[in-house]
Amino acid sequence: MKRIGMLTSGGDCQALNAAMRGVAKTLFNAKEQVEIYGFLDGYQGLIYSRFRLLNYHDFSGILTKGGTFLGSSRTPFKTIREPDAEGLDKVAAMKQTYNKLQLDCLVILGGNGTHKTAHLLSTEGLNVVTLPKTIDNDLWGTDMTFGFQSAVDVATNAIDCIHTTAASHGRVFIVEVMGHKVGWLTLNAGMAGGADIILIPEIPYDLDKVVAKIRERHERGSRFTILAVAEGAISKEDAKLSKKEYRKKLEESKYPSISFEIAEKLTKKSGFDVRVTVPGHTQRGGSPCPYDRVFASRLGSEAGKLILDGSYGFMVGYKNREIVKVPLEEVAGKLKMVDPNASIVQEAKMLGICFGD
Amino acid sequence: MKRIGMLTSGGDCQALNAAMRGVAKTLFNAKEQVEIYGFLDGYQGLIYSRFRLLNYHDFSGILTKGGTFLGSSRTPFKTIREPDAEGLDKVAAMKQTYNKLQLDCLVILGGNGTHKTAHLLSTEGLNVVTLPKTIDNDLWGTDMTFGFQSAVDVATNAIDCIHTTAASHGRVFIVEVMGHKVGWLTLNAGMAGGADIILIPEIPYDLDKVVAKIRERHERGSRFTILAVAEGAISKEDAKLSKKEYRKKLEESKYPSISFEIAEKLTKKSGFDVRVTVPGHTQRGGSPCPYDRVFASRLGSEAGKLILDGSYGFMVGYKNREIVKVPLEEVAGKLKMVDPNASIVQEAKMLGICFGD
Amino acid sequence: MKRIGMLTSGGDCQALNAAMRGVAKTLFNAKEQVEIYGFLDGYQGLIYSRFRLLNYHDFSGILTKGGTFLGSSRTPFKTIREPDAEGLDKVAAMKQTYNKLQLDCLVILGGNGTHKTAHLLSTEGLNVVTLPKTIDNDLWGTDMTFGFQSAVDVATNAIDCIHTTAASHGRVFIVEVMGHKVGWLTLNAGMAGGADIILIPEIPYDLDKVVAKIRERHERGSRFTILAVAEGAISKEDAKLSKKEYRKKLEESKYPSISFEIAEKLTKKSGFDVRVTVPGHTQRGGSPCPYDRVFASRLGSEAGKLILDGSYGFMVGYKNREIVKVPLEEVAGKLKMVDPNASIVQEAKMLGICFGD
Amino acid sequence: MKRIGMLTSGGDCQALNAAMRGVAKTLFNAKEQVEIYGFLDGYQGLIYSRFRLLNYHDFSGILTKGGTFLGSSRTPFKTIREPDAEGLDKVAAMKQTYNKLQLDCLVILGGNGTHKTAHLLSTEGLNVVTLPKTIDNDLWGTDMTFGFQSAVDVATNAIDCIHTTAASHGRVFIVEVMGHKVGWLTLNAGMAGGADIILIPEIPYDLDKVVAKIRERHERGSRFTILAVAEGAISKEDAKLSKKEYRKKLEESKYPSISFEIAEKLTKKSGFDVRVTVPGHTQRGGSPCPYDRVFASRLGSEAGKLILDGSYGFMVGYKNREIVKVPLEEVAGKLKMVDPNASIVQEAKMLGICFGD
Repeated sequence: MKRIGMLTSGGDCQALNAAMRGVAKTLFNAKEQVEIYGFLDGYQGLIYSRFRLLNYHDFSGILTKGGTFLGSSRTPFKTIREPDAEGLDKVAAMKQTYNKLQLDCLVILGGNGTHKTAHLLSTEGLNVVTLPKTIDNDLWGTDMTFGFQSAVDVATNAIDCIHTTAASHGRVFIVEVMGHKVGWLTLNAGMAGGADIILIPEIPYDLDKVVAKIRERHERGSRFTILAVAEGAISKEDAKLSKKEYRKKLEESKYPSISFEIAEKLTKKSGFDVRVTVPGHTQRGGSPCPYDRVFASRLGSEAGKLILDGSYGFMVGYKNREIVKVPLEEVAGKLKMVDPNASIVQEAKMLGICFGD
Repeated sequence: MKRIGMLTSGGDCQALNAAMRGVAKTLFNAKEQVEIYGFLDGYQGLIYSRFRLLNYHDFSGILTKGGTFLGSSRTPFKTIREPDAEGLDKVAAMKQTYNKLQLDCLVILGGNGTHKTAHLLSTEGLNVVTLPKTIDNDLWGTDMTFGFQSAVDVATNAIDCIHTTAASHGRVFIVEVMGHKVGWLTLNAGMAGGADIILIPEIPYDLDKVVAKIRERHERGSRFTILAVAEGAISKEDAKLSKKEYRKKLEESKYPSISFEIAEKLTKKSGFDVRVTVPGHTQRGGSPCPYDRVFASRLGSEAGKLILDGSYGFMVGYKNREIVKVPLEEVAGKLKMVDPNASIVQEAKMLGICFGD
Repeated sequence: MKRIGMLTSGGDCQALNAAMRGVAKTLFNAKEQVEIYGFLDGYQGLIYSRFRLLNYHDFSGILTKGGTFLGSSRTPFKTIREPDAEGLDKVAAMKQTYNKLQLDCLVILGGNGTHKTAHLLSTEGLNVVTLPKTIDNDLWGTDMTFGFQSAVDVATNAIDCIHTTAASHGRVFIVEVMGHKVGWLTLNAGMAGGADIILIPEIPYDLDKVVAKIRERHERGSRFTILAVAEGAISKEDAKLSKKEYRKKLEESKYPSISFEIAEKLTKKSGFDVRVTVPGHTQRGGSPCPYDRVFASRLGSEAGKLILDGSYGFMVGYKNREIVKVPLEEVAGKLKMVDPNASIVQEAKMLGICFGD
Repeated sequence: MKRIGMLTSGGDCQALNAAMRGVAKTLFNAKEQVEIYGFLDGYQGLIYSRFRLLNYHDFSGILTKGGTFLGSSRTPFKTIREPDAEGLDKVAAMKQTYNKLQLDCLVILGGNGTHKTAHLLSTEGLNVVTLPKTIDNDLWGTDMTFGFQSAVDVATNAIDCIHTTAASHGRVFIVEVMGHKVGWLTLNAGMAGGADIILIPEIPYDLDKVVAKIRERHERGSRFTILAVAEGAISKEDAKLSKKEYRKKLEESKYPSISFEIAEKLTKKSGFDVRVTVPGHTQRGGSPCPYDRVFASRLGSEAGKLILDGSYGFMVGYKNREIVKVPLEEVAGKLKMVDPNASIVQEAKMLGICFGD
């Protein structure tokens, strides 16, 4: 018999349930008997020993459901080594829960922060298999993460809606897309939504070039312009600041987010009526798109196979259309960013999309 | 032969094109010959004589398209009587364009502000037929306006997406729904999305009651709470201020919108993690929902019939499931608000929804 | 304390769960204590005493879910008076279950057939409150039924998809919409989807007029034609047959449904390439649209109120934008059909839509 | 200056317009001057010299539109070498049009049949660049085709809708998915929709195993079963027939399609109530999904680059996440089928999905 712990950590996204269903169905369909313990609210459940023994029906009907039925929470890695408010050693507590339940393996679904902790637990001797969950698609070691395509769909849908209203009123519209550090989501939603200008963290922008693009469109007879702007879009000047200086600048900013600052500056420089829309957390929610359902199910199923094979210490990833196992030490602490010279960026430029560079 | 002018004014919404197609198809299918002139960007096209002669194919394939192919603009009624920057008398200019083109009638699609101007033109002797367009459903004289149900769909979809993420993280989420003066959209989207708390302009709220509701849910085992908050939601204290005082207070507020203020206060009072999402202009955009397509087509078709009958000075409205003609003087300058004692509000309360009153 | 039985009967549709949630929330939120028993698979659960005591959480999270969590089945009214295969008197069995559980009232959700049985139970002395569920919108005594608008959305979406492919290939396409006896769904989906020809049971068609319409479109330069055809569309000749003769003719037909027969005849008469699409049961499924969620919640809430008031023997309906209670004897056995002279039909004709009459 | 001809051939699909927009934007944005001629209705436009000179605005606003604004038609390859009804040599006619317009290159968008003809034209000395369009994803030389993911979305949505109704009534439902020769679409939509049984052409089925799976589910407490069945699903017995024998058998079959035959046999063997739904041509229609919009835009843009580089005789494909050029002779006449041992099939089986093998 195998005893498995399962948890979802970090910001939630679509297809978490689909992925867990994939793991569970594979385990329950195997010959070996399996017990699956679900920890509530991410690592907190593991630390404070809050869990439920899950059965076959817990995983039934959840393929199409957004969110995570186990709950999630963000546990900042920085503080994982520090004791909690009551002085509890969190890592020791997690190991204790693991041992108390005599677990053979932990299945951990999460993004970058989650993988740092997962790797730590692995180095502490726990058996761990992870699944790459994030709408940002910024996990190292995998071409794709689940949640990403669903978020692209939501953000694109927002741009589609803005398109008709922008065209009717002859306005400039900024749609702020999630992504503080990487621009995959903004780049894809921007291309899918027919944005004219795309600003992402990896390609610092020059506002004058943005203004020039809007003017050029206007002169060509286009009444409106759509900008897809990542939360972490950064100007060329700001990109010269140190991280610390820039963080301070953001904290002291009077704008709720960067898009509002860009909007105000654009209005001043161009005279156009610039509006901002922030789809925000809707990008994490709703039913996963069919692509993510298939993808998460496949990854989950392969994670189940790894567990049955007793092959631990890996993230199940996707490389060159093959599902692969990636050692956790290769994943943890790295970001997969948009290369400004990547072919997708070049193609976007050939289509006439301006990145402000 | 009949010569018709057509324009769309005010904030755009879904099904404007569907309504214009309804008018045009009815006119083109009639025995009498008809010429339709489309004025660009609302009343501006009429004032500055910017128009196109439209043919059958201009109205083909637009049933499902959001926005307005004629463009729109907001022309504040207050200033319609004042000359423009170049000293032009706008009303006289509109009459001149009307007479120059020897129009038999103007078809005007718009909301409250638009209807004030349409009524003015009617009293000035122009033949006018109007159609009730607004996502707010606040036009007097009609049970329903087109655009409303489509906006409900977009706003509900946003709440649906937020639902899964709120549930996963055990958070309090505010979804800010459009509506500065009336709460129909927030009320319907809130009920459709399963919001626990709905705050609308017509029912001033007491924040303590909102906090109490969140606490009650929490104690009952619900991990999260969703608030649907209209842009014009107002607290009981603020409702005591004069309009002028309140406007000043809003202008001086440091918050981008009321939801952010409510969020900060809720966090302070309750200790919960409160997040805000603002779907914003997406609520006006995208393809009209089937309900709106049918409804706008029907209204448009009846407007066409009025024109063929030479019956002018009316808005085509909807009362008790009948399409009716409503004299413009009954429509202009009035708002159809949510009655706090309306049965739909009582039903919402029976369902357990808190209005903070 | 009140003890309530609840069941859903007949073909399922969207918003059944939303309606039950509305009833339950209203009852659970009331001061009086309430027990709700859910009977499984419609009247069968009542006959064979298969039920579950339901609690607050059974109704949580179901607002957006299609289908019915209680299950449903079709129990033909004709045979309700006859004993079942084992000789059981079904009506007596239902009364026995009702009495055994000491129920105060049955809440029954269903369409036409369901209402006949509900009325029968009411005349047999049971307390009954019903809710109007059907995608056909053919229930007497109410302007609207829940499920209808959601089905319109699904059918319209199918027509939208067909539109692009029909236009690309210059084809004639038939989309077969549900509705054996009434044409509300076909009429609304057809208008919403921009169908050129709509055939419904209430308006027998002349195939030559259909062919003439296709030719006229073709000559006008339209490459394609879309027909929305109700399952129960009937030709003028067939409309002259007796019901019995026509049923026999259908049974002996080699075509899976009427659309295929129309397609073959159209091809022969016109020479056009005619294709058929049958969205079928998808029209009953999926998440209810926001309109239906609000509407079903409101009806459910008012049903809860009736129960708390001890007011039995009614269907909760909707008339002239008011929620009303309709005596069951007025509802049972009647069909609300499309009047060929109704204003919506006239408007459709003004838009150029051909009904083949 | 470059003169380009463009045509779309074969069954239409989503993102054809997006791909053409990608090519055109890239060409119009290049320094070199470009003329683009659009041939109407596929190869027919080329044969009979029916075309339009296209400008920048023809490609504006079409990113999100389904179908093809140039029209399409199926030209069976078998007969391309034979003269048409009037004795015209089709290949010679195409060359004549090409030469008359002094074209530098033809951009051809299509699937398998289209590529055979495109290759033929290439061997006849015309410059050709092609783009892989098909909902079937069965083109050799590319990991992905545009149209595929959008079709997966439509088919999955149909299964989602059927899910709720199947669950409510405890029925067995067959959803027939497009694909006569290959099963990619059925496999992906089936997995995304949570189908329990998937039958595809590449894996002949044994009906007894299908019945056993339904029984097993029933005994486990599942009230319903969903089958995703490809149009070209084939039983083990029929797979032993020669192609000719099997085609004859199909032609003589009394069933409109294979699903109806399977349904009847399943009902006989299992006693379950089995229903069939055929989404049909809706799978080709509607707005392309964001994935396809990005993908088609990228391919189109790279096709534009090839043309600018004067690099002809290639299909623009996608291999291992890189956009590549594939010589036409490698593409023509080959099918990319599902390998029964592919990891995606193994994963589906681990999830408990039955293929009937």
